[in-house]
Amino acid sequence: MTTSADNGDRTLAELMRGLGTRARAAARELARATTAQKDAALRAAAAAIRAGRAGIIAANARDMEAARARGLAQALLDRLLLDAGRVEGMAGSIDEVIALPDPVGQVMAEWTRPNGLRIRRVRVPLGVIGIIYESRPNVTADAGALCLKSGNAVILRGGSESFHSSTAIHRCLQQGLREAGLPEDAIQMVPTTDREAVGYLLGSMQEFVDVVVPRGGRGLIERVMKDARVPVIGHLEGICHTYVHRSADLDMARRITVNAKMRRTGICGATETLLIDRACLDTHYRPIADALVAAGCELRGDAEVCARDPRAKPATEQDWRTEYLDAVISIRVVGGVDEAIGHISRYGSGHTEAIIAEDAAVVERFFRDLDSAILLHNASTQFADGGEFGMGAEIGIATGRIHARGPVGAEQLTSFKYLVLGQGQTRP
Amino acid sequence: MTTSADNGDRTLAELMRGLGTRARAAARELARATTAQKDAALRAAAAAIRAGRAGIIAANARDMEAARARGLAQALLDRLLLDAGRVEGMAGSIDEVIALPDPVGQVMAEWTRPNGLRIRRVRVPLGVIGIIYESRPNVTADAGALCLKSGNAVILRGGSESFHSSTAIHRCLQQGLREAGLPEDAIQMVPTTDREAVGYLLGSMQEFVDVVVPRGGRGLIERVMKDARVPVIGHLEGICHTYVHRSADLDMARRITVNAKMRRTGICGATETLLIDRACLDTHYRPIADALVAAGCELRGDAEVCARDPRAKPATEQDWRTEYLDAVISIRVVGGVDEAIGHISRYGSGHTEAIIAEDAAVVERFFRDLDSAILLHNASTQFADGGEFGMGAEIGIATGRIHARGPVGAEQLTSFKYLVLGQGQTRP
Repeated sequence: MTTSADNGDRTLAELMRGLGTRARAAARELARATTAQKDAALRAAAAAIRAGRAGIIAANARDMEAARARGLAQALLDRLLLDAGRVEGMAGSIDEVIALPDPVGQVMAEWTRPNGLRIRRVRVPLGVIGIIYESRPNVTADAGALCLKSGNAVILRGGSESFHSSTAIHRCLQQGLREAGLPEDAIQMVPTTDREAVGYLLGSMQEFVDVVVPRGGRGLIERVMKDARVPVIGHLEGICHTYVHRSADLDMARRITVNAKMRRTGICGATETLLIDRACLDTHYRPIADALVAAGCELRGDAEVCARDPRAKPATEQDWRTEYLDAVISIRVVGGVDEAIGHISRYGSGHTEAIIAEDAAVVERFFRDLDSAILLHNASTQFADGGEFGMGAEIGIATGRIHARGPVGAEQLTSFKYLVLGQGQTRP
Repeated sequence: MTTSADNGDRTLAELMRGLGTRARAAARELARATTAQKDAALRAAAAAIRAGRAGIIAANARDMEAARARGLAQALLDRLLLDAGRVEGMAGSIDEVIALPDPVGQVMAEWTRPNGLRIRRVRVPLGVIGIIYESRPNVTADAGALCLKSGNAVILRGGSESFHSSTAIHRCLQQGLREAGLPEDAIQMVPTTDREAVGYLLGSMQEFVDVVVPRGGRGLIERVMKDARVPVIGHLEGICHTYVHRSADLDMARRITVNAKMRRTGICGATETLLIDRACLDTHYRPIADALVAAGCELRGDAEVCARDPRAKPATEQDWRTEYLDAVISIRVVGGVDEAIGHISRYGSGHTEAIIAEDAAVVERFFRDLDSAILLHNASTQFADGGEFGMGAEIGIATGRIHARGPVGAEQLTSFKYLVLGQGQTRP
């Protein structure tokens, strides 16, 4: 006799292994699918989402009602909400994925050895990808579409608060697969809100899952990184910096800083800290700070900034480590590029940093000595985005150093194999 | 008051964190080192190894004595032994690494966006690499040199049986770093044979170690994959197949099969299983089997093979899953390429497979439907090697799908960053 807890565990384990087994089988089929087949499935999925708009919005209403009853914060409710515009946005994102080049089969390199062996390095899908996300139901469509385009089977695990919305969207994706004659199991969703399922996906499915991509807040990412027994492509935080060097063009520095901070404050590429050279403080500080304040930004500064600007609150040590994702900026005065590099190396998260400068030697130093995924010269940190890089849809910006770094699009969801053509060669 | 076990644990933790902290600092310096500096350090290290030959051999004698006293197997003793030739071999391997191109700073891709942003993708070192290996002391020199060339700091953890040999070699590498003005901490060795150190390296140093590369037998690799909390680049096994299609040129099939199995039986690219088409059994089987037997190979076959050839012992289910690393081959008769693909997908380890065939359509199918790191047509599986691929020295052949796959050389020990040049762009 087993206890009910045992039964529950066994059932979950069976459920998850079932998902894994079917994903593996689907991945094998999908790896051979043609671009035309995959695009047909995506087209049918986008059509199903557009046709099923009312049903998706009704499912979302159930999630919203439960979320309100649980007293979820307004920001969370807003992330969860789907309306006609957002449903169309999801379908539109799938259209964009269709327009992307298919990375699978691309020849990455080709060379011939002195013994006549011809070696080709060819892109192949990664295999099975696990996506763990939170409340935004549109991730279901975005991640599903991107994985399908890159020939990967995917196991989606969304937040429990968006379960009904994600289920409705997922149904449309599977309809697309079915209509295109591809295996429905190519895009699966964990069909339970049981929290243990995440632990199982991270810790007990090495055989079935090649990589896990977490999408969400710091708590989720840290949990995934801590518990995962499979490789993780994730980004921790975007504590991005804009550094204004003494050689910076003032007008450019002002425009870029305001854009980098205020265009959208909630994205990971938003600047959180402004570093400014002491040597240009008299000329550059006031116009930049005024423009930030005019745009609605709160200022937090070091002692020099606060002494100069009564609007600035004193920044604490914690401020330099904080991703505000809000209309707040921390400002520190530095003695030059080396001090700026020192600050960023110490407090940054390796995501994106910009330097505004006309001095080429200083830019070179900034580019050489900093090791963030993205370094920009005379441009806004808000360009840290797969679409802006010309890579199309992205699943996130990786801050790790293994496999993918920076925007993670279809190409980054691939591996490769070597094909070697011989004429009877044996190794001496 | 603490118990002595607590003290020991704390001491080890402190020791390992010290290694990690120093490796991180060295990695930052090394990332900026010029190719000339790194090559100078490698040249000085090779010279120190040549000059220190007597000392290295004396240290090795201590290891050998202890190993004999512990009754280690002859194969292990052979792996452990260093003589004048092997010491020269290590120095020669460093010479080869010097001759390799420096991957760091290479521009992998470059493009311009419609808004004028110029984007470059540039290779950078991975950071800090942990290498965990077994009894071969030469790995100390090989891995240390390859990591240095690729700008990575490395923490080496060799087997306890080669501790004195590795320590002596390690001293030469550090001498090289010192002479070239690079930080000695760029190549560190765990200075204790405490077995807990491996667990600590794998499980508690995420902050300091970017990737772990295990080199050794199945037990080691499995332990690393199970316990690692950091990314692992490793290969499990090389259960490699050679498939003789009915269209194969007989002479070529015979020469390649014998080479693939018997050139060196102990390397991961050695063929372990021969698959042969039923349709060419009458013509092709006997000449290939005779040549294998003449080369000293034991045959294990399925029922059809055993019925035809009294020299063949019956292969068990376990045989198809076994990496013999010895003069033994398992042979199975298949109905065609699909059955061959099915067998390899089921029993293979995703390392290397060869097809011998003249029929181009069959080759295409083999290349498309199999997903091993290396697939060869009309060539020996023993070509699965970084040197044979023209990649220079390698640290192993990766069978995983994340980051590196196939031969892992200097280039595979790098990551990249994006450098973006603007002229004042802000994001709309």
